[in-house]
Amino acid sequence: MSLNLFLIFMIASAAAAATGIIFRPGSWYDGLRKPSFTPPKWAFPVAWSTIYLLSAIAAARVALLPGAGLALALWAAQIALNTLWTPTFFGARRMALAMGVMAVLWVVVAGMVVQFWMIDWRSGLMLLPYLAWLCVAAALNWRVWRDNPNAGAH
Amino acid sequence: MSLNLFLIFMIASAAAAATGIIFRPGSWYDGLRKPSFTPPKWAFPVAWSTIYLLSAIAAARVALLPGAGLALALWAAQIALNTLWTPTFFGARRMALAMGVMAVLWVVVAGMVVQFWMIDWRSGLMLLPYLAWLCVAAALNWRVWRDNPNAGAH
Repeated sequence: MSLNLFLIFMIASAAAAATGIIFRPGSWYDGLRKPSFTPPKWAFPVAWSTIYLLSAIAAARVALLPGAGLALALWAAQIALNTLWTPTFFGARRMALAMGVMAVLWVVVAGMVVQFWMIDWRSGLMLLPYLAWLCVAAALNWRVWRDNPNAGAH
Repeated sequence: MSLNLFLIFMIASAAAAATGIIFRPGSWYDGLRKPSFTPPKWAFPVAWSTIYLLSAIAAARVALLPGAGLALALWAAQIALNTLWTPTFFGARRMALAMGVMAVLWVVVAGMVVQFWMIDWRSGLMLLPYLAWLCVAAALNWRVWRDNPNAGAH
């Protein structure tokens, strides 16, 4: 694994993580109805920090291996979609549109897990927490959107 | 060049482009002082569409060539930073923070041009309009920030 590559993938991840600091949930989100499976607040930064770190390590592991082009293209797509989700949901409060972004992100990450696994199964394994957390995040986005029909922007 | 790869890089670019539709300049930005070199409004979507298209083609060209790992890592970092800039400036109205994002984006794209050029000079050439436009965008971000000291969020 190359340290330079890891640091560049971490710069990309830092851009995605910054959206969580710039666009905070705040009183608008606190006042919304949420499903019973909503994780506690502290779990979100812990989960995302872990995911960003593991996915940057996975990308740095496969980046110099032959045939990594498709895996890295999917990595680029996921980090752009990930950076888009938070401003769409918490900034613009477009919950339906955020659900669409989340759906595309889920498909891209699922494809990414397969591609990484085929090149280096350990790197594929490192991406599984990401896919698992996206299932929770997608269910949460869906329920908050459907259970608060008048709360978002249109 | 692989069509699949091109389409995945275009999904990433579409995420960045979507920020320009979700976070429009609007009356807040229209009311700010702007420098004389500000391009006309129609130039922005034209420039960005061209840049996203050319950079997706460039990435799809180099992705399957040997030694593309660093080039693709930089491509991933630029698309995440690009997706972050618009919500930071037009959504959160954090003009100083957006200037910081722009500075990191400029350095990443400059490094990306060099890396792409070394692998395939035609692909490097396709990225030059991106770097040129970022010079204009950075100068504009700087002047709008400095010339409107009380307009942004802090």
